[in-house]
Amino acid sequence: MDDRGRQKHPRGLRVQKQYFTFAEPPHEMVLESGARLGPVTIVYETFGNLSKAKDNVVLIAHAFSGDSHVSGLYEGEPDDAGPGWWDSMVGPGKGVDTDRFFVICSNILGGCAGSTGPSSPNPVTGRPYSLDFPMVTIGDMVGAQKALLDHLGINKVVAVIGGSLGGMQALEWSVRYPDMVRAVIPIATTMRHSALAIAFNEVARQAIMADPNWNHGDYYGQTGPDMGLAVARMIGHVTYLSDQAMRRKFGRRLQDKKDFSFGFDIDFQVESYLRHQGSKFVQRFDANSLLYITKASDYFDLVEQTAVGESFQDLGLTKAKFLVVSYTSDWLYPTYQAKELVQALKRADRNVSFCEIEADCGHDAFLIPDERLNNLVRGFLDGVAGK
Amino acid sequence: MDDRGRQKHPRGLRVQKQYFTFAEPPHEMVLESGARLGPVTIVYETFGNLSKAKDNVVLIAHAFSGDSHVSGLYEGEPDDAGPGWWDSMVGPGKGVDTDRFFVICSNILGGCAGSTGPSSPNPVTGRPYSLDFPMVTIGDMVGAQKALLDHLGINKVVAVIGGSLGGMQALEWSVRYPDMVRAVIPIATTMRHSALAIAFNEVARQAIMADPNWNHGDYYGQTGPDMGLAVARMIGHVTYLSDQAMRRKFGRRLQDKKDFSFGFDIDFQVESYLRHQGSKFVQRFDANSLLYITKASDYFDLVEQTAVGESFQDLGLTKAKFLVVSYTSDWLYPTYQAKELVQALKRADRNVSFCEIEADCGHDAFLIPDERLNNLVRGFLDGVAGK
Repeated sequence: MDDRGRQKHPRGLRVQKQYFTFAEPPHEMVLESGARLGPVTIVYETFGNLSKAKDNVVLIAHAFSGDSHVSGLYEGEPDDAGPGWWDSMVGPGKGVDTDRFFVICSNILGGCAGSTGPSSPNPVTGRPYSLDFPMVTIGDMVGAQKALLDHLGINKVVAVIGGSLGGMQALEWSVRYPDMVRAVIPIATTMRHSALAIAFNEVARQAIMADPNWNHGDYYGQTGPDMGLAVARMIGHVTYLSDQAMRRKFGRRLQDKKDFSFGFDIDFQVESYLRHQGSKFVQRFDANSLLYITKASDYFDLVEQTAVGESFQDLGLTKAKFLVVSYTSDWLYPTYQAKELVQALKRADRNVSFCEIEADCGHDAFLIPDERLNNLVRGFLDGVAGK
Repeated sequence: MDDRGRQKHPRGLRVQKQYFTFAEPPHEMVLESGARLGPVTIVYETFGNLSKAKDNVVLIAHAFSGDSHVSGLYEGEPDDAGPGWWDSMVGPGKGVDTDRFFVICSNILGGCAGSTGPSSPNPVTGRPYSLDFPMVTIGDMVGAQKALLDHLGINKVVAVIGGSLGGMQALEWSVRYPDMVRAVIPIATTMRHSALAIAFNEVARQAIMADPNWNHGDYYGQTGPDMGLAVARMIGHVTYLSDQAMRRKFGRRLQDKKDFSFGFDIDFQVESYLRHQGSKFVQRFDANSLLYITKASDYFDLVEQTAVGESFQDLGLTKAKFLVVSYTSDWLYPTYQAKELVQALKRADRNVSFCEIEADCGHDAFLIPDERLNNLVRGFLDGVAGK
């Protein structure tokens, strides 16, 4: 994802980061791998007001490089600061209406935007975990979110909503805590990575691990694998776009000159854009977090997890209504994969709506302000929670 | 491209490398950039016999990582050695019938399989050119092939045939030397790179240039940018496959174990495959050649080069018949790009046949033995040269 969704914020929703720490040793969190992790800190932000009955909660799960700052501005930021990554969707009167819903978004376990991850201090050594951080799964990320909700005294959510990796978390919520979730909106996501998606993730990991500054993950406090991380980001970024969008946005236009350089400087605008995306990402993201999160997404497999023969047992246990959304030009998680999800839900006799949105922007389309998605989400939430 | 096209050779076509050197200083080759290069050596191989009238020549242009060894075995190789990269297409009785045609294939200028490229000695310093090698274009590659044909006394070719980057060379031949070319078969190629294709090339270049061992191109005689080159190859390799082919070939199958490693070792077969492709490539390819050749392909633009307003002037000058071939699952140079070529040729009032082959193997489909392509090529050549 890039920052295209971040527009100037018109209304002045102000938020602040909050922190919740649990799983203090010796009561560590037991991960899906069997490893133990603790303490675990989750950073989160809330938007709107929690009802007395605590029955108006909407949980937003962020995508790979997202964070808890889904909407609005931080307290003290100037009015023209860039708002959260889904500001077009979440706010007063928007698709997820914060005048009505109490919205929670937390940074994922394994991330690097405030929640515990490989760059966090290992309580045993006092130094960053680095590769001693245990592998975490989508299930573990969701488990940590559940601990946060327990802490907040919330035992029911109107909906879990997420795009891409966030959609995987939303799906995981529906089968892991079926009694808590009334509705799920998985957007531009998949029940499991294709070989193509794994391949791109693996190449991105290799780009980082090929950088000598990666130093087997042990680079904190010194120069990190910035070059490798930038290349990894460029690879990812191309998969978030589409052929059509790139033709429209860049075509073969040259950057700042009239003819070719006949060298290895930037010739085309698309080259400049990619290099910029790469170097910008290095400023804000931890290379080890990229390794852990991409691996978690590769491991995620709702089919293997929930299917018994042709039936989807665990999906059948969920009481949630589903709104599945895909985009015509998303080639990372193409519509056929959304349809596989819809079919699995139908085979499990679940209540599911499906919408494929015509858009030429590729996988990242869900991050781009689009009234069609807002209307879809608003209407669906109305159906779930009543008008 | 990988080695899937290389099957055991059944008939025993034996070839040897031949070398032609020209543009000895002070009579250097003048490149499209204006730079001068000389001497230039081109390695080539020939298959079949040249007719007395020298009128049975078919020129094969290889793709990005190919070489002059299009078919057969080298003299002295054991019978079970892997044959050339298009052995399924070129040989006695095959699509390009060497009992009938005199086939020539040369390694491209800028390459690293015997022809002059960045790893060749710079006559000024006696050391490899490295980045002092001038930028070469598809036009320059074709110019060097023309010098080779002049040397062989050949002034007419029945057909120029090539896939991918080879297809660009074939197209370039048709407009650069219109009087020499009777037919052109561009396969799985494009009139110009899309922003997406440039993006993937740029990321591959960045992967190499991010490797400290690249050392601004000056790595000959010491450890080269093997890690960066391997990552670059993995990126390229993914673009040569297709979602469908990867699902069929790898799916989510695990490599040599029953469960996840919960670490960064290889879990999935597709990861193992990619790492293998990367490290195999490092053994045979020069990183600087990758930089030069990808840039040449990004620069190639037959539209800009030949179009005046809506008409395609230079294409109209060619006397060649065209057979344009694309593959349904090629997303690097998708069928819509082949159709743009066909439409440009039609607007220029050229004789053009077009075939989109249904195949799920992605861009590399043209390298995989397929009787449909062989029959197409054979039939088309019959039409051009008479039965």
